[in-house]
Amino acid sequence: MKRVIPLREVEAFDLETDVLIAGFGGAGACAALEARAAGAEVMVLERGSEGGGSTRMSACEMYLGGHGGTALQRDLGFEDSTQNFFNYLMEAFGPHADEERVRVFVEGAAEHFDWMEGQGVPYKRGFFAGRDVVALTGDSLQYTGNERTLPFMRVSSPVPRGHLPADSGHKGGEKMMGILLARAAEEGAVIHCDARALALVQDERGAVHGMLARVDDRDQLIRARRGVILATGGFIMNEVMTKRHLPELERVCTRHGNPYDLGDGILMGVAAGANAIHMSEAFISIAHYPPESLSFGIFVNDRGQRFVNEDSYLARIGHFAAQQPSEQIYMFIDDAHFARPRYVLNTKVVAVGETVAEVEAEAGLPTGSLRSTVELYNAYAERGEDPLFEKAPEYLAPLTKPPFALVSYKLSDIRPAVFTLGGLEVKPSGEVLTVDGEVIPGLYAAGRTVAGIPRTSKGYASGMSVADVTYFGRLAGRAAAAKL
Amino acid sequence: MKRVIPLREVEAFDLETDVLIAGFGGAGACAALEARAAGAEVMVLERGSEGGGSTRMSACEMYLGGHGGTALQRDLGFEDSTQNFFNYLMEAFGPHADEERVRVFVEGAAEHFDWMEGQGVPYKRGFFAGRDVVALTGDSLQYTGNERTLPFMRVSSPVPRGHLPADSGHKGGEKMMGILLARAAEEGAVIHCDARALALVQDERGAVHGMLARVDDRDQLIRARRGVILATGGFIMNEVMTKRHLPELERVCTRHGNPYDLGDGILMGVAAGANAIHMSEAFISIAHYPPESLSFGIFVNDRGQRFVNEDSYLARIGHFAAQQPSEQIYMFIDDAHFARPRYVLNTKVVAVGETVAEVEAEAGLPTGSLRSTVELYNAYAERGEDPLFEKAPEYLAPLTKPPFALVSYKLSDIRPAVFTLGGLEVKPSGEVLTVDGEVIPGLYAAGRTVAGIPRTSKGYASGMSVADVTYFGRLAGRAAAAKL
Repeated sequence: MKRVIPLREVEAFDLETDVLIAGFGGAGACAALEARAAGAEVMVLERGSEGGGSTRMSACEMYLGGHGGTALQRDLGFEDSTQNFFNYLMEAFGPHADEERVRVFVEGAAEHFDWMEGQGVPYKRGFFAGRDVVALTGDSLQYTGNERTLPFMRVSSPVPRGHLPADSGHKGGEKMMGILLARAAEEGAVIHCDARALALVQDERGAVHGMLARVDDRDQLIRARRGVILATGGFIMNEVMTKRHLPELERVCTRHGNPYDLGDGILMGVAAGANAIHMSEAFISIAHYPPESLSFGIFVNDRGQRFVNEDSYLARIGHFAAQQPSEQIYMFIDDAHFARPRYVLNTKVVAVGETVAEVEAEAGLPTGSLRSTVELYNAYAERGEDPLFEKAPEYLAPLTKPPFALVSYKLSDIRPAVFTLGGLEVKPSGEVLTVDGEVIPGLYAAGRTVAGIPRTSKGYASGMSVADVTYFGRLAGRAAAAKL
Repeated sequence: MKRVIPLREVEAFDLETDVLIAGFGGAGACAALEARAAGAEVMVLERGSEGGGSTRMSACEMYLGGHGGTALQRDLGFEDSTQNFFNYLMEAFGPHADEERVRVFVEGAAEHFDWMEGQGVPYKRGFFAGRDVVALTGDSLQYTGNERTLPFMRVSSPVPRGHLPADSGHKGGEKMMGILLARAAEEGAVIHCDARALALVQDERGAVHGMLARVDDRDQLIRARRGVILATGGFIMNEVMTKRHLPELERVCTRHGNPYDLGDGILMGVAAGANAIHMSEAFISIAHYPPESLSFGIFVNDRGQRFVNEDSYLARIGHFAAQQPSEQIYMFIDDAHFARPRYVLNTKVVAVGETVAEVEAEAGLPTGSLRSTVELYNAYAERGEDPLFEKAPEYLAPLTKPPFALVSYKLSDIRPAVFTLGGLEVKPSGEVLTVDGEVIPGLYAAGRTVAGIPRTSKGYASGMSVADVTYFGRLAGRAAAAKL
């Protein structure tokens, strides 16, 4: 398959525009809006029969803060300095972080909220204080990550940063993307659905001049006078790529995304000389909450050892679970806190007993292994402490009320939702970089086609992807439109 | 930096050959020998002032077996079926493994030993039975990996597979590479040292026709009538690449390789459309043995939890150590087994005490954390069992003789040796593949420039790299020479 066509082989272009965008999800729609706002002609190619991408499938929570707080945070009485937000993100991604990208993001995130409201996305001035994957109360602000857990609290004061469209719960994506897609059309972006980007047109110096695409059932060459933006999503639906880059996870995961998360943009970018980075990083979800009472339980591996503070965000749980020596993960819990998780399917109660020893024996764990873990945990929980994993006191209570249960979260049973975080290396402007760190002229990328703000499941929080893809989608649209 | 030059911009080539090889280490030298044997003209470009690469710096142990055993294994009374060898490698690399490559390797490995002896590399019919990084006795056969540990023994009968040049200990690389470099010259390969491969010459269909290289202090275009072989090593010395692909490890590691492990071949390959895979995988060495008595100790993380069977091979120890929640790793040991590791530098005794509780307190570990781990370990060790990590009975004894010590193996202190395992995706023939799995005509790669047999530190064993780079270097040389 040819993903790059030499410019000199092009006799004539069939279509022309200023900014050509492949992919009409969150990144593509925001890029289109900003490029139009800057006065550029815009054409969007969407492989599906309608736009929205994986962003539409999400709750469209955006992880935002900084500048003292977004309008929503401030209206609800929360303060969030740019430095506080920066510290949180740097703790979340550590050496994986792209510090320059993080800086640009924390500087612009509060304004990004205003922009999104300005587009017509409604936000309700209400704060949801519970522990849930998304607020189902209609409120727009909530904690979504590890803000109130350690080690994060050591470097950043806890502030809720999940910004959810009003009254939409899990359906925020339909609301937000419905608005953004309509706005892009209204602003005059030319939109082709059922249109597949096939190859980049590149000259001998490496500059990109357009694309070959299947539009209206014909292969057409499209010239982009100012720039091409790749925004075709991640690659979780591409089985060849996931086998290469996520060999262990792909066997146990539920592929989370839209059917066109096939890596098209990444593959075209790499074929044009781009650098792909963090290709083995992915978001891995184990949402054992709600109900909140399950955060009182303890996760253990097949050696009976704990591996994470159970008050962590679902992707941090997923990250550490996936690192354990085998895919056999359990939750140990007592009768005072037992419940069924609302979101994790196919957990199994594998042992029940009046004593920890009974449970341990019934589950076939080495004698004493689970017992020593529970004894140590309980001794500290009694005092409201968890020196090993630093779970917050609000979720600490000795697990002492029989019967006790061991619940299997075996990965190949629960099949955690996974999507990819690796992709093209870009500047904050969306300019795509080569393996040598040089810009490929005329080529931009945004969304999960790039390695963005979230770069490992360990530090992920709900809303980071949508915030990243929409915010940096805008920057890419602006940068491409500005090029003459 | 331009890593690909369009063929049509080439007016004339300055030099010509049949097979052009970039890199004169283990892979390049073997490729040169086989290409010459097939009657091709061969030219080798070596960036250093002499050949040998990182292979020369190694002990040049080769991990071989199959077909009932290599000549060396059989002469020493060991049997190793092809299936047994295959099972071992598949257990070692699991879903990371390239099964086709493994099959080709286990089929050819015994013959490869004969070939190496045929080149003049001496092997001594002696078996070293101890636990050491390399045999220092002059013997040529030893266990080098996880053969006698679990879970490996469940799928593969233990056989020693480390084949070390005779009487050379750590200096086997000088012996083997000295011979191979001389043989390549003797067989008529044209060798240019201080010559740097800069870019591939590629036509519009993607086929590779030669290289631009700095030879004799001039940029020269070299035509390769049959093929170009990239064999420039891995990328552990490239700080930009390691920061991208090994962000956590690069901060704590000792970069292990020759100064030209800069990723040149990978970068040129990617620029020409190749697929780079497993770029975040690396060999990580924590060689706590010898002395063997340290295998009686237990490794724990900063929560006092064990994480590996301590009789594992050094790279498996390194793999699990690097996965722990913090870089603070310890060994707990008693006076009956205490010693200083011969190879790991900068370990520190951070606590000594008459009881485990004293040691725990002195080291600042949470009260009861280390104690519960040691109690459980000792209770089982007493019976010669280790149900949690399955350490072999020969290294199991309760740690009960005071004083006890906790020895820090903090990664940023001990700085484990690390080299990269990711690289270009190739067929067993060395043909380089695009992101779509298509062959790039005329382009071959071998050595640590490719993702080879060893693909994660977890399953690595000494000798796997040298066996892989020399064996598949030969196949690449043969495949390139065969093309007309």
